[in-house]
Amino acid sequence: MLYDEAAVRPRRVARIATRIVKKTRVRLDTDERRAQLVALAKKVFAESAYDEISIDDLAKAAKISKGLLYHYFPTKRDLYIAGLSEIADELVAAVSSLDETLAPIDRVRVSIDAYLDHITRHARAFVSLMRGGIGSDPEVASVVEGVRTRLFDTFLNGQPFAPAFAESARFQTAVRGWIGFVEGASIDWCIHPRLTRLELRELFVQVLFEILRVVAPAELVWKTLPK
Amino acid sequence: MLYDEAAVRPRRVARIATRIVKKTRVRLDTDERRAQLVALAKKVFAESAYDEISIDDLAKAAKISKGLLYHYFPTKRDLYIAGLSEIADELVAAVSSLDETLAPIDRVRVSIDAYLDHITRHARAFVSLMRGGIGSDPEVASVVEGVRTRLFDTFLNGQPFAPAFAESARFQTAVRGWIGFVEGASIDWCIHPRLTRLELRELFVQVLFEILRVVAPAELVWKTLPK
Repeated sequence: MLYDEAAVRPRRVARIATRIVKKTRVRLDTDERRAQLVALAKKVFAESAYDEISIDDLAKAAKISKGLLYHYFPTKRDLYIAGLSEIADELVAAVSSLDETLAPIDRVRVSIDAYLDHITRHARAFVSLMRGGIGSDPEVASVVEGVRTRLFDTFLNGQPFAPAFAESARFQTAVRGWIGFVEGASIDWCIHPRLTRLELRELFVQVLFEILRVVAPAELVWKTLPK
Repeated sequence: MLYDEAAVRPRRVARIATRIVKKTRVRLDTDERRAQLVALAKKVFAESAYDEISIDDLAKAAKISKGLLYHYFPTKRDLYIAGLSEIADELVAAVSSLDETLAPIDRVRVSIDAYLDHITRHARAFVSLMRGGIGSDPEVASVVEGVRTRLFDTFLNGQPFAPAFAESARFQTAVRGWIGFVEGASIDWCIHPRLTRLELRELFVQVLFEILRVVAPAELVWKTLPK
C-alpha cells in the first residue's frame, strides 16, 4: 500500500498545518489567506480521506476561526474542490512539459514519469477520487473529466502525430482508451503494487505503441518515426 | 448522443411506471413489491439523471404512498443502489456466459457484445455513474469497483489462459488496464460515437490481443492458441 490506512490523522493534520502556517502568523491579505487554505486542503486531503476531515480540523489546523474559514469557503466541499482543481492543474502542467528535442517514445516516458510522480504523491486522494469514495458530485466529476480531456488534448498536440491521422476516429478512440488503461492500471497499482514503478511505466509505453500500431501503420502515425 | 438530454422526464417516468405497474394493481406481498420498486428504479434511473428524479416521482410512478416507499427504501439513494446492484449483476452475468466451444477470440467478441448491449441499454446511467455525476458515495463506488473486480475474475477464469501465466503480475496489471481501456473508450463512445459499434468491438478485441502479446509470447498465454 502506498498510503497508510491506519495512520493517526489529527496528529498528521496538525503536523502538516504547522509546516504551512508557521511562517504566516501575521495578518494575511485575502489572496494569501485563500492560497494558504488551498495549500492546506491539498496536503490534508492528499493524506486523509475526505470524510475523515472536518471543517473544525481544517480551521484548527489553519489557526483561524471557523467563521473566517467559512468566509473563504462556504463548505468543506468548496475547499476540497479548490484544492482538487489546483492538483488537477499541476498534473496537467507536469504531464504537458514536453521536451520537443526528445524522440516520441522518450517524450511518452517523461510524461508517464510525471504522471506517476504525481499520483504517488497524492496516492490516497487519487484512489479515493477515482473510485468515488469521496462522495463525488457533478463539480468534482467535471474536474476529473476535465483532466482526462486536457490530457487527451495535450497528448494529441504534444506528440509529433501526422495531423490527418490525429483526426481519425479510431485513433482518437484508441488514445482515449489508452488514458483509461493508464488510469485503471494505476489505481490497481496504488492498491496492489504488483509491478515496480519502472515496469509499470514500460508497460504503459509498450501498450501505447502497440495500440497505435493497431490503429494504423507507423509511417502514418508519426511525422518522425519513434526510435 | 445515445441518450436524449432534453427528453421530457415526468411523462417518461409515468410511461415507464405504467408498463411496470399495470399488472400489479392488486395487493403485492413484500418481495414482489420490493422487486417491483427495484424494476422501476432500474428503468427510471437508466433514462434520467439521479438528481432529476424525486422520491415523490417514484412513489407516484409506483402508485404507492411515499410512506410505503420509505418502508422499503429509507432514502432515494437506497432505492438507487438496489437498482444499480441488479444492473451490475446482470452485466457480470451477461459478460460471463461464455461458450467454451468457441475460440478465445470469439469468446472475447461475445463478451464485448454483451457488454456493449448492456451499456447501450443503460447508456445514460452508465455515463453518469462512471463520471460520478450521480453524486456517488462509498456504497455506489463499491458496486462499481465490484463490477470491475468481477469482470477481471470472470475474464481470467473464463478464458483458456495457462494458469502459471494468469498469475503473472504484468499480465494481471495489463488485464486490469484493458478493462480501463474498454471503460474509458466506451464512455467516450456513448457521448461521441465516432466509430460504429462493430468498429469499437473490433478495436477492443485487437487491442486486447496486442496487449497480451506485449506481456508474453502467445504460446505462453493460451492453452490453445487463438485462431
